[in-house]
Amino acid sequence: MGILTTPPKGMREFTAEQVELRKYVYNTILQTYAKFGFREIETPCIENINLLSSGEGGENEKLMFKILKRGDKLKHGAAEDLADLGLRFDLTVPLSRFYANNHGKLPKISKFIQIGNVWRAERPQKGRYRQLTQCDIDMIGESSVLAELELINATTTTLNQFGLSDFTLKINDRRLLQSVVQYCGFAEQDASKVFIILDKLDKIGISGVQEELLKTGYEQQHVDKLIDLLASFENKSFEEFAAENEQKGFVEKEILEDLIFVMNEARSQSSGDLRIEFDLSLVRGMGYYTGLIFEIKTPNYSWSIAGGGRYDKMVGKLMKGKPSVPACGFSIGFERIVLILEEQGFQVPAQAEKILLIGDKNKEGMSRLLTEANKFRAEGKLVTTDKKWKNVSKQIDSYKAQGFTSFAILREDQPVELKEI
Amino acid sequence: MGILTTPPKGMREFTAEQVELRKYVYNTILQTYAKFGFREIETPCIENINLLSSGEGGENEKLMFKILKRGDKLKHGAAEDLADLGLRFDLTVPLSRFYANNHGKLPKISKFIQIGNVWRAERPQKGRYRQLTQCDIDMIGESSVLAELELINATTTTLNQFGLSDFTLKINDRRLLQSVVQYCGFAEQDASKVFIILDKLDKIGISGVQEELLKTGYEQQHVDKLIDLLASFENKSFEEFAAENEQKGFVEKEILEDLIFVMNEARSQSSGDLRIEFDLSLVRGMGYYTGLIFEIKTPNYSWSIAGGGRYDKMVGKLMKGKPSVPACGFSIGFERIVLILEEQGFQVPAQAEKILLIGDKNKEGMSRLLTEANKFRAEGKLVTTDKKWKNVSKQIDSYKAQGFTSFAILREDQPVELKEI
Repeated sequence: MGILTTPPKGMREFTAEQVELRKYVYNTILQTYAKFGFREIETPCIENINLLSSGEGGENEKLMFKILKRGDKLKHGAAEDLADLGLRFDLTVPLSRFYANNHGKLPKISKFIQIGNVWRAERPQKGRYRQLTQCDIDMIGESSVLAELELINATTTTLNQFGLSDFTLKINDRRLLQSVVQYCGFAEQDASKVFIILDKLDKIGISGVQEELLKTGYEQQHVDKLIDLLASFENKSFEEFAAENEQKGFVEKEILEDLIFVMNEARSQSSGDLRIEFDLSLVRGMGYYTGLIFEIKTPNYSWSIAGGGRYDKMVGKLMKGKPSVPACGFSIGFERIVLILEEQGFQVPAQAEKILLIGDKNKEGMSRLLTEANKFRAEGKLVTTDKKWKNVSKQIDSYKAQGFTSFAILREDQPVELKEI
Repeated sequence: MGILTTPPKGMREFTAEQVELRKYVYNTILQTYAKFGFREIETPCIENINLLSSGEGGENEKLMFKILKRGDKLKHGAAEDLADLGLRFDLTVPLSRFYANNHGKLPKISKFIQIGNVWRAERPQKGRYRQLTQCDIDMIGESSVLAELELINATTTTLNQFGLSDFTLKINDRRLLQSVVQYCGFAEQDASKVFIILDKLDKIGISGVQEELLKTGYEQQHVDKLIDLLASFENKSFEEFAAENEQKGFVEKEILEDLIFVMNEARSQSSGDLRIEFDLSLVRGMGYYTGLIFEIKTPNYSWSIAGGGRYDKMVGKLMKGKPSVPACGFSIGFERIVLILEEQGFQVPAQAEKILLIGDKNKEGMSRLLTEANKFRAEGKLVTTDKKWKNVSKQIDSYKAQGFTSFAILREDQPVELKEI
């Protein structure tokens, strides 16, 4: 045949059992977020390539699946001229476009939910897929930390719904990081490049970061100062950092006060006993962050299960005369939650009685089957119909494996008698 | 800037109000289908290009969005060599692949729901989009008309859930059409080409079909015989057709008996008074149909709102040594249902009380806001928080427009007093 029956490399398909769990996670997230006043919007999976190449998507832009031009538009030339569209690689870039396009009819303070697929041409590996579901909440229009607090509040409450409470919220502030980097002697315009290297700390360790900074060409004394500072704060509390800030004056007091307020408030509003940790080495990859950044980690996994922050300069880039539009988002790692629940052997709560009705092969049998099935369905029950197999006990076993809980074999002129499977 | 803030041509984005209606339609369909024993599966939006170019997708294959190869794989050459993947244009081709890939672990009779996006590079126009949601149910493994009947049953019940009951189920059989075409003198292997022309009857009329058949090169006498036959049946009942079949012997009696059984049974199982019409000119575009075909039409719209049929030869093409795998599907026109409900001014039933809490701007105010909001949320209520605007009545109006039903302005040391908006 020559036609592969597997999905394309790095893409997955989901059986009914898998979809059941994914939909349970999806609906739980959606319903919990809704209680906090967030409302779902949808953007298309495809965007114009110039939006997806604007730089806001960071490293993800390099992983874009590009769509070939169609018909006459397709002239063979440079690879950049072959594509006019791309598949979205995140939900933040499309949200910015959506907001710029619709802000006139949107509320002053808009609270968005987006749950949808994104695509990245990454090298496939465990827990890393080329099509994955992302799940973001964003507030646009709120400049105070009420945004950060409601996002943290909604996210931790949602995680609790899955029985997840053993996690740590790590928090930092990009302005603070920026100040520290400048304090160490780096030029202001180098800050974001330094952040990209710093962000690899988890993977390559502090010596790896040092090496890469030097290799990029930054001065030894600046690199050393930054590395020393990072190392010195690795096990220090926020209070110790604040005291040092008092001396060295990295950053304005107000920024620290907001940070303290968010940490205290997030802790006291949490229903579980939320652990909160100030982490000076937390960067979060994306270039667009401008203020508080945060992520949630669980003890048994190296990756974070949620992450986000404030990005006040991104949306305005698509809107004339709006240098700053307050925006803050928090994303739950949908695929990671599914993976954790699968590994925990989580069972989706059964929804309804599942009934199997078995009837005769002939037309009268089929007619009776449909009539009796529809009576149960009208009562809200789930019913599947099937004609009698030669081996009825094999038939019943097959449906038992699909989660059916009761059955009846219809016999001419006799009432339906449901039995437990 | 040069960056467009509108979605790409033919693609749509949806505000919270639009998503609310779409999700209502989505959930209603899903829940109703589930009662009939169908279970949701998911395939990736992207498939290998050779699957999507196998011919089973018919005319839709020409509308495929193709994905550019990545990295070293991209050598400039013929346009066919530039793409290795494509976006799915329907859910039936991916389902066939899914079944071929997973049949070993699937039940003998599998009942699938698929609701998902498909993409077609069509010329955009009202009601025709480049990204659209499709909504299919399929039974694989059931060779008797129990499949057709349960599909019709589930589909009409679902439409009734939306208050839609004024519609007609049109029905025909590809084997019968095939026999009629052969009876008129066409060669057996020309049948599917003749069907493609016949299928345009709705758009180009009987004289248009005649013209196109002649232009394609078929013999005048065969074309005339077919056109006469079609015209003669335009207002005839199925009984008259059956009587003529008795004389002329177009098709085996068994096929007609099944057709009669399905029509009678579908009518008697329907909760409304379902109109059923045998329509000899019904073709349904796709080449893969092999037996009964059907579609549902409403009086006020030219297009059908659901369509499907039996396709016993398609799945097996992807499975070694399986020339025939019984399969039958029915697809609801999701976008069309949404459009009809919008045009009817349909209101999604309100879900929960929506509460607005307004607090002071300062940190104490924010803290109180969060505490009181979380108390209501713990009771299952939907609460949004906001700091007091300068113009509070404007603030309340803004939230009223978003569907909020009650509010409270928090005052220091005073209990929360909810008021109707």
